[in-house]
Amino acid sequence: MATVPMIEYDDASDEVRAIYDDLREVRKTDFINNFWKALANQPGILKRIWAGIKEVFSEGEIDPVTKEMIYIAVSVANNCDYCIHSHTSNAFNKGMTVGQYEELLALIGMAHQTNGLASGMKVPIDEVYLK
Amino acid sequence: MATVPMIEYDDASDEVRAIYDDLREVRKTDFINNFWKALANQPGILKRIWAGIKEVFSEGEIDPVTKEMIYIAVSVANNCDYCIHSHTSNAFNKGMTVGQYEELLALIGMAHQTNGLASGMKVPIDEVYLK
Amino acid sequence: MATVPMIEYDDASDEVRAIYDDLREVRKTDFINNFWKALANQPGILKRIWAGIKEVFSEGEIDPVTKEMIYIAVSVANNCDYCIHSHTSNAFNKGMTVGQYEELLALIGMAHQTNGLASGMKVPIDEVYLK
Amino acid sequence: MATVPMIEYDDASDEVRAIYDDLREVRKTDFINNFWKALANQPGILKRIWAGIKEVFSEGEIDPVTKEMIYIAVSVANNCDYCIHSHTSNAFNKGMTVGQYEELLALIGMAHQTNGLASGMKVPIDEVYLK
Amino acid sequence: MATVPMIEYDDASDEVRAIYDDLREVRKTDFINNFWKALANQPGILKRIWAGIKEVFSEGEIDPVTKEMIYIAVSVANNCDYCIHSHTSNAFNKGMTVGQYEELLALIGMAHQTNGLASGMKVPIDEVYLK
Amino acid sequence: MATVPMIEYDDASDEVRAIYDDLREVRKTDFINNFWKALANQPGILKRIWAGIKEVFSEGEIDPVTKEMIYIAVSVANNCDYCIHSHTSNAFNKGMTVGQYEELLALIGMAHQTNGLASGMKVPIDEVYLK
Repeated sequence: MATVPMIEYDDASDEVRAIYDDLREVRKTDFINNFWKALANQPGILKRIWAGIKEVFSEGEIDPVTKEMIYIAVSVANNCDYCIHSHTSNAFNKGMTVGQYEELLALIGMAHQTNGLASGMKVPIDEVYLK
Repeated sequence: MATVPMIEYDDASDEVRAIYDDLREVRKTDFINNFWKALANQPGILKRIWAGIKEVFSEGEIDPVTKEMIYIAVSVANNCDYCIHSHTSNAFNKGMTVGQYEELLALIGMAHQTNGLASGMKVPIDEVYLK
Repeated sequence: MATVPMIEYDDASDEVRAIYDDLREVRKTDFINNFWKALANQPGILKRIWAGIKEVFSEGEIDPVTKEMIYIAVSVANNCDYCIHSHTSNAFNKGMTVGQYEELLALIGMAHQTNGLASGMKVPIDEVYLK
Repeated sequence: MATVPMIEYDDASDEVRAIYDDLREVRKTDFINNFWKALANQPGILKRIWAGIKEVFSEGEIDPVTKEMIYIAVSVANNCDYCIHSHTSNAFNKGMTVGQYEELLALIGMAHQTNGLASGMKVPIDEVYLK
Repeated sequence: MATVPMIEYDDASDEVRAIYDDLREVRKTDFINNFWKALANQPGILKRIWAGIKEVFSEGEIDPVTKEMIYIAVSVANNCDYCIHSHTSNAFNKGMTVGQYEELLALIGMAHQTNGLASGMKVPIDEVYLK
Repeated sequence: MATVPMIEYDDASDEVRAIYDDLREVRKTDFINNFWKALANQPGILKRIWAGIKEVFSEGEIDPVTKEMIYIAVSVANNCDYCIHSHTSNAFNKGMTVGQYEELLALIGMAHQTNGLASGMKVPIDEVYLK
């Protein structure tokens, strides 16, 4: 198949441009990464996904760097190459320290290990966790 | 197979008891959850895993609640029932707010979705992420 | 390791050639894609896998394009690069429309998201689904 | 943790009830399954997920039964118990035949197998798929 | 959906009975586990899967216990509850020692961890592995 | 992000060099593969992971080739490119035969298939496996 074509700003429909404009404003950067240019082939999905991303990354009780670290954790477990690259980059841009990154990797590694062990031994769930 | 037998403190070897004692002291609770009682059938693994968990949860640049949230994120992606239950419980015990939990779930959900879309469209990795 | 060597038709044993011949006849194309050339290093597996593929893609109650879309869905969830490329290509060759592909991606994305949420919240299965 | 509490219609806020009402109308049934009752603890996510589900299951180029089969395929690959149960139930309710279900299972099984083999042998992607 | 009905020997068609008979003979036991009774709803799949299982577990260069351990390793990584139970049971029945089981769990745990770390850091593949 | 920098022996700290020295001695080769050079950016993780790997690959009841085959099985299921390459290479270096590799691939493929089928049909676990 090859990958879907990347829709550049200048070639985009008005509908797509409006989302690109919003994306640039919210993120305070002109850079539009390939994920969005690929999604732009399906304006309906592009719109819905951007709305979701905007919501989950909007100001809340979890700080922006932590949100990116959580995103990295899921992306590593799902082994999504693109997502690991983009969110690790985002995390550093938003201020993740080298020390935090090291601890994040260590946590991800241990979690994979204990996930495998708990599933492999079929450990029964403690009563206290079910209350 | 059924699950492996749970090794209770009173039935444990000295080697296992020493780890249970350390676990109780570090965690400041007498409660020993089934994961450790199952691992105790293999004292060598028990020792190594506890050392790893102690290290990744020791004081560092990522705060304790965030560490548990990252652990939950990996456990959900790996779909480890036991781990989701125990770490969600831990996170609330360590102070995760209902608002943080809501944002965590929303992030996990969106990350799964964009992981699937980026993998499905085979989005090429932007040059800027490879530098 | 590098990948296993690709077994070309001219270098293949009679046993492998017979399968290549059948594959070409069933698929009505001379093209043999790398998956089969790699499997041909293990003629026993090649034979069994081709028999399975021939069976699941034989005429039945699910139409050919839908079969390829289901294959894409599994391949994305398992994140198999080769399989996503080959089955997306197959699907378009068999008549998948751009509109269907868009809807397929949207479904795959949402399914990943709700899979993550249902697993993360440990939603109890409704009685009605267990009857 | 135990699972999150199920929010019943009578105990729901106006915001949640409005979504429950829409869900009942769109699906033409009074039944609200646990997934929604669990999400209702987080009205923001509930609203966004319902909007997404409504969109991907709205009338389009892929018929309703096929959409459910694609959803089942992803849910099996992600091993989401709840999702497998609910979407298999939905698929039968929407008219999936026993023959289609049999073919679906056969496809899912073969796809898992060839996914594993293609990943295990690191099969290089054919040039023709990259055009 | 609930699970599919279990097809008992006495209620099985001649086609299914012939496979049950072969299964009992090859395995030298009258016991037919639920996996086969579930597959028997789809005799075509039952036949193909049994042929595949018979082939991969037939005498070869990997001994029977090792084959079961490899099967357990895959089943844990895919988190298939049924498969972990049945193949761990099979492995012990075929002679897996407690010491081997301990080493198997340790390997599975470490492999999950290093898989997560290698994917998370996007470690470039060494030239020597690509030759 | 690009990948993390590879830490070469000559540029390594004394702490990292000590581990590289041990790794070379244990493995009886001067070659240090990229996984360790990447981990060396986080000496704490490097130390812990190397200790774990050394332990699980130390002499025991499972022979060295089988250990590598089990590692490959997990790595394929988790779809870790780096790990599949490195452990397949290791397995051949330690004496895995072409026949064993063929049987390994066949087992991995069948296990993925039956994992998918057992999960998809929600097969109930036999009583005998729960004892």
